Amino acid sequence: MSLKVGIIGTGMIGQDHIRRLTKVLSGVEVVAVSDIDQKRAAEAAPEGAEIFVAPRDLVRSDRVEAVVICSWGPAHEEQLLECIAVGKPVFCEKPMVTSEASARKVMEAEVAYGKRLVQVGFMRRFDADYRRLKAVIDGGTLGAPLMYHSVHRNASVPEGLYTSEMPLNDTLVHDADISRWLLSDEIVGVEVRLPRRSRQGGELRDPHFVLLHMAGGALVDVEISVNIAYGYDIRGEVSCETGVAALPNRPATVVTDAHGIRQAIPEDWRERFIEAYDQEFREWIVAAGQGTATGPSTWDGYAATLTADAALRAVASGGLERIKMVEKPALYGAPSALAAE
Amino acid sequence: MSLKVGIIGTGMIGQDHIRRLTKVLSGVEVVAVSDIDQKRAAEAAPEGAEIFVAPRDLVRSDRVEAVVICSWGPAHEEQLLECIAVGKPVFCEKPMVTSEASARKVMEAEVAYGKRLVQVGFMRRFDADYRRLKAVIDGGTLGAPLMYHSVHRNASVPEGLYTSEMPLNDTLVHDADISRWLLSDEIVGVEVRLPRRSRQGGELRDPHFVLLHMAGGALVDVEISVNIAYGYDIRGEVSCETGVAALPNRPATVVTDAHGIRQAIPEDWRERFIEAYDQEFREWIVAAGQGTATGPSTWDGYAATLTADAALRAVASGGLERIKMVEKPALYGAPSALAAE
Amino acid sequence: MSLKVGIIGTGMIGQDHIRRLTKVLSGVEVVAVSDIDQKRAAEAAPEGAEIFVAPRDLVRSDRVEAVVICSWGPAHEEQLLECIAVGKPVFCEKPMVTSEASARKVMEAEVAYGKRLVQVGFMRRFDADYRRLKAVIDGGTLGAPLMYHSVHRNASVPEGLYTSEMPLNDTLVHDADISRWLLSDEIVGVEVRLPRRSRQGGELRDPHFVLLHMAGGALVDVEISVNIAYGYDIRGEVSCETGVAALPNRPATVVTDAHGIRQAIPEDWRERFIEAYDQEFREWIVAAGQGTATGPSTWDGYAATLTADAALRAVASGGLERIKMVEKPALYGAPSALAAE
Amino acid sequence: MSLKVGIIGTGMIGQDHIRRLTKVLSGVEVVAVSDIDQKRAAEAAPEGAEIFVAPRDLVRSDRVEAVVICSWGPAHEEQLLECIAVGKPVFCEKPMVTSEASARKVMEAEVAYGKRLVQVGFMRRFDADYRRLKAVIDGGTLGAPLMYHSVHRNASVPEGLYTSEMPLNDTLVHDADISRWLLSDEIVGVEVRLPRRSRQGGELRDPHFVLLHMAGGALVDVEISVNIAYGYDIRGEVSCETGVAALPNRPATVVTDAHGIRQAIPEDWRERFIEAYDQEFREWIVAAGQGTATGPSTWDGYAATLTADAALRAVASGGLERIKMVEKPALYGAPSALAAE
Repeated sequence: MSLKVGIIGTGMIGQDHIRRLTKVLSGVEVVAVSDIDQKRAAEAAPEGAEIFVAPRDLVRSDRVEAVVICSWGPAHEEQLLECIAVGKPVFCEKPMVTSEASARKVMEAEVAYGKRLVQVGFMRRFDADYRRLKAVIDGGTLGAPLMYHSVHRNASVPEGLYTSEMPLNDTLVHDADISRWLLSDEIVGVEVRLPRRSRQGGELRDPHFVLLHMAGGALVDVEISVNIAYGYDIRGEVSCETGVAALPNRPATVVTDAHGIRQAIPEDWRERFIEAYDQEFREWIVAAGQGTATGPSTWDGYAATLTADAALRAVASGGLERIKMVEKPALYGAPSALAAE
Repeated sequence: MSLKVGIIGTGMIGQDHIRRLTKVLSGVEVVAVSDIDQKRAAEAAPEGAEIFVAPRDLVRSDRVEAVVICSWGPAHEEQLLECIAVGKPVFCEKPMVTSEASARKVMEAEVAYGKRLVQVGFMRRFDADYRRLKAVIDGGTLGAPLMYHSVHRNASVPEGLYTSEMPLNDTLVHDADISRWLLSDEIVGVEVRLPRRSRQGGELRDPHFVLLHMAGGALVDVEISVNIAYGYDIRGEVSCETGVAALPNRPATVVTDAHGIRQAIPEDWRERFIEAYDQEFREWIVAAGQGTATGPSTWDGYAATLTADAALRAVASGGLERIKMVEKPALYGAPSALAAE
Repeated sequence: MSLKVGIIGTGMIGQDHIRRLTKVLSGVEVVAVSDIDQKRAAEAAPEGAEIFVAPRDLVRSDRVEAVVICSWGPAHEEQLLECIAVGKPVFCEKPMVTSEASARKVMEAEVAYGKRLVQVGFMRRFDADYRRLKAVIDGGTLGAPLMYHSVHRNASVPEGLYTSEMPLNDTLVHDADISRWLLSDEIVGVEVRLPRRSRQGGELRDPHFVLLHMAGGALVDVEISVNIAYGYDIRGEVSCETGVAALPNRPATVVTDAHGIRQAIPEDWRERFIEAYDQEFREWIVAAGQGTATGPSTWDGYAATLTADAALRAVASGGLERIKMVEKPALYGAPSALAAE
Repeated sequence: MSLKVGIIGTGMIGQDHIRRLTKVLSGVEVVAVSDIDQKRAAEAAPEGAEIFVAPRDLVRSDRVEAVVICSWGPAHEEQLLECIAVGKPVFCEKPMVTSEASARKVMEAEVAYGKRLVQVGFMRRFDADYRRLKAVIDGGTLGAPLMYHSVHRNASVPEGLYTSEMPLNDTLVHDADISRWLLSDEIVGVEVRLPRRSRQGGELRDPHFVLLHMAGGALVDVEISVNIAYGYDIRGEVSCETGVAALPNRPATVVTDAHGIRQAIPEDWRERFIEAYDQEFREWIVAAGQGTATGPSTWDGYAATLTADAALRAVASGGLERIKMVEKPALYGAPSALAAE
């Protein structure tokens, strides 16, 4: 019994998810696609899939049991509300929405519906390295986590298309989400410092150094470089009371030659997180098959929106920008343990 | 369109493959099972699968498009010949067969059939670490491979059930096969040395140190320990003319605590090779769906049988035991490049 | 021809330097010691060394060619001025002095003398790991340094004796000095953040997270933990425009056992920096033998004092505390290249 | 009170030791040199050192308290016997002597003298990495050592000057000595295998693969490559009953750039073992100052000679060449514990 899925948005990421759902994973079938570009939709659609013009019609189609949203961010709010209106599980690529007001509207609709339907695309939570890291922290043998050092390095970004807001809007949200998840805590304040500018990025503001203050007192520092040239390098280290836990090197062949003893660095996020994307959908398929959602929630999408907003304010103000969240609906679990102390 | 598979043998490994084919992988369906223990077969069979008493009947069933053999070794010859007789693709767990004569009989049948049907269960060839290692070697930037150092350490073996022949019969074959594959070469001689005996294994002969002489002149040394206590530790390093390439540490969290800076070692072969097993079947499903087989072949199973036999002779003789293979049928590709020089 | 040295202060560090100068290093002789505790001085003095009551008399003794100051911080200013007054080279343990006014007084005296006489005890600059790291940065192949991540972890500190000011006064100065040296730049601002408190240190404020703003724009973040329990762990990573350079693991045996694959962490600063201390004095002996000093200078001691003061102010203010240095006397070299851009 | 040393042989290694004894180490003075090339001796001699034509006269000079032999191997026997005749401590570079008969003659003279006078130049025993490795093995927490994997890779060797015997005569002796020392055991048999020849070395027989059989049953395998091009790479791993201990990477900066995450490999033996040479002489100076010797002994030099001879025989025979040592004189300590079991 395969889950019948409709996909909204058939751009690069949408096409990749179609490939994943049709060629890699079991228990799922892509039965419908929709895109504002009808030609692109037709090309991306797997055999037998129906092509819709309006996302609304795809969502409401009787054949579609669950929805994957890969459209551009500003369209997400309406599409998510449609899914919730008809009670269909939905996977939504990040950003969940593009404003705090939107995030609250989606959250309120889901809470009113009374059951989780939305999974947001924070794929790092499904990465085996991060999961092992969290297991070590949660295991408690190292004591409480006090600091988290997160490093996010991109080889390069598309010149012209990439603006100085994007490291905080699009990149930081991954570090912010994984920090909340690793530390089981909420972000209550954001500071941004701008180190000496890299000449690699031309006029782009790069790198960024961000401090995230967690409710429980832990401090997260994030190095974001989007033009480091050498590869896509994701690092993370949690300093606890009696020990430290860190992401390992990626499992590349250990070569010894004229360049030393060395291991290759991933080229880009696809290479780095391909298994995480697979696992993300594997778990989504199981939950959606049961008419609900697990993993990163609307609450997490809401938190990401608040963090990105605060980070952008912090660049302007130079100071600490506080985050004030609404009370956490019971649907999204208990308030974080640390914050409650 | 799913591949319809019948499984012969529902012991530990058979059950694991049933789980894999029904829960993990796409494009495949288990439609039949068979076991000499009818009760075990009934318990292991997924819903809707037919249960056969005789493996022969399973192989010949119209519903069964491809076969997975997980029975005990001595039964493999007959079951493989049945599959070849009806032209059905078959995955066969190691040992392919238990004698040189058997291996040749199966090989001759497949050659007579004229198309590859058999894939033998050397899962290491599907492991990402080994594949990257082979890609480095084959890339040629380090020059020709001259030596390969292979380390095979098991935490423990079942007391009483595990005999002194098994390190050479069951364990060495993995190192032998991966050596042939990594070096694109054949084994022409085997020596075995018995180091100081570990007290961990009681009366068991353990560890073993094995030398494999390759046709092209490369020398492989294999350390086999089956009672090392601390975990399942698989290592490999290829020394080439101008550089060295080795398997990396497994991607475990880097913990720093009172025990130092450290990464965990896998507990057993399941943990170490679980992704390799998945990939092995992923590729088998594709080939079997096309009515043929890729990956480790009957020729590779034949080579493994010869190596294990030579290794056992080498223990007895204390000297170099030579291996003489029949001429390689064209069905299994060209003679190895190195051997041909 | 050995350098004849007088040592002021025969506490723990003084005794260690006496051992070093008499047993480990060549070209040097300890001919005089002085301590307010006469008994301790007598016990610590090597055979043939004269014991002085007043440091002043030791400094002025005809037998003494160069001086090593290991007394407590508040006494340093007067003792340094004595040495400069008579033109004798002097090694001074940190803190060079305990106030900005003192630092300037010593600096002015040395400038008036017209030749460097003072070397301050920042031993990290003599550590082989740090020197190789600096060579990589200075080599320029990775582009300009943009960020430096410095980690300073102590297993524990003496309960009761260690106050919440000491991580900034005594510990941070090492990270601050090595940052200035690695980046060839000056610190112009300091921020301090106080993460969730470790229960390891009881009421002690621990850990600290410090940001150092460099004149050239590079940003340094420092994690200081003084009760991490597991060992003495010093880490450093410089993020440059096109690459990253970091201190390696310390060269400990790679053990694989039930705790994983692992390397021991040094127990304390003695174990970690013992070779650096030796090298520090090796180079001091050479310079002092020529009547001058190299290595960390009065200017560096002055910078350290300003940084510690700013860090303590930053704890109180919660904001960015700026550092304003006097113009750099030519005696201490050109203004840093980066700052001048 | 400095040890007054005379040096025989002022070639490359002799000059390096003169530098070490005059510039690096304390408690020692070079008072005499001798070389068959008088001009070279004069140039190498430090100020105030007397230059001798005949080594015999240097040894017998009243000013000389201890001797360092850096002449060529065939001259060592006579020079060692001279030193023993007058009871002067002597450091002798390897090879101690060039035949078993010579080794026994020197050993008998020293035994007759009744006190150790000779230290042989196996500097690896003074290397911190090897010492830590031995401490782990001797600590016993990993159980008895069963196998030792030793890797000896040279970047290149002087073309024309380097013959196919030298990997066994000059290179293997280091691995053989360190194996005996790490495992506290004697070598009783040697096998040599010749892997596929590297094109890096032209007609040179390279690499070599050597098996050393220890009296206690442990098995040592040695990979010797003398033209690996990329650097000087020394590795060692001891497999014990319940764990494994290995030499770490050398402490080089961890650079991440377009070549991956990497650490440099030493260029040559000078870079790799410079501290070991210093420590070797530091300990020799102490023992020689007391009129005796510690560290690698005449017995160890004798064992090295036997191993090299056996290895050369093993190349010719293709089989196992056994080593039969005389009974160990009490002067050189108890027979090895393992061998005695």
